[in-house]
Amino acid sequence: MLQTSSDLVGIEGARLINLKSNLDPRGSLIAIELTQDLPFEPQRCFIVSKVPTGTVRGHHAHIVCHQLLQCMSGEILVELSDGKNVATFHLNRPDLALHIPPKVWGTQKYLSSDSVLLVFASHAYDRADYISDYTEFCNLPRQK
Amino acid sequence: MLQTSSDLVGIEGARLINLKSNLDPRGSLIAIELTQDLPFEPQRCFIVSKVPTGTVRGHHAHIVCHQLLQCMSGEILVELSDGKNVATFHLNRPDLALHIPPKVWGTQKYLSSDSVLLVFASHAYDRADYISDYTEFCNLPRQK
Repeated sequence: MLQTSSDLVGIEGARLINLKSNLDPRGSLIAIELTQDLPFEPQRCFIVSKVPTGTVRGHHAHIVCHQLLQCMSGEILVELSDGKNVATFHLNRPDLALHIPPKVWGTQKYLSSDSVLLVFASHAYDRADYISDYTEFCNLPRQK
Repeated sequence: MLQTSSDLVGIEGARLINLKSNLDPRGSLIAIELTQDLPFEPQRCFIVSKVPTGTVRGHHAHIVCHQLLQCMSGEILVELSDGKNVATFHLNRPDLALHIPPKVWGTQKYLSSDSVLLVFASHAYDRADYISDYTEFCNLPRQK
């Protein structure tokens, strides 16, 4: 099992996951079996890089798509909101992954110019799955 | 289509692939549909980091597994051999991917301490698919 631990973080369904890293004098290796090791089977991935320091990206939620964020280099501050609570997460290593479920609003602030974000997504691209209006996000139907 | 171009590189079946990067003032975004955009549908991925500068990793080939290498940060020198020819590749950005087919021997030299390698693999982990003895590699049956 790849995950060594995962923690609820006060945002509906979101979790911080410590991925197992094999560390020896030659470096660190994280091996992920994509069909079984993550909270979902990824259909898509993103790589975000070359972001000017201080830039904030994201500003959207998804209706059905789950995402897993890992910082490959540098440091990225992720802010999440589930409409009730807000929490921030400092991502600064590949073996610390943040699972963002659907119906959670997220932003990512790039804290250094060498920051690189890897995102796995549970679904193929669908423009209709993006909610980029915060008022619309707050009015989404949710489980009580 | 994600791939903007790919080039044969003188090693049997290996290719350098320029992945499409969406660049704007907020940075660069590479989006990969995992079921269709790569030369194979990945079943596994690796992330290698924290490698001391100058360290050489790899030293193996696969019998059936394809791999796609991308440098997320820093710079990595990849040397490939198909038993006849040897070629080296300088990977230093996420949108430059090296497709290594099976029956190709590979090493990766980490040129800076911030280097991070992302590898997608076509198959789940199988110890029997690794060839770590160079003499055995040279004696593999190959198509004429």
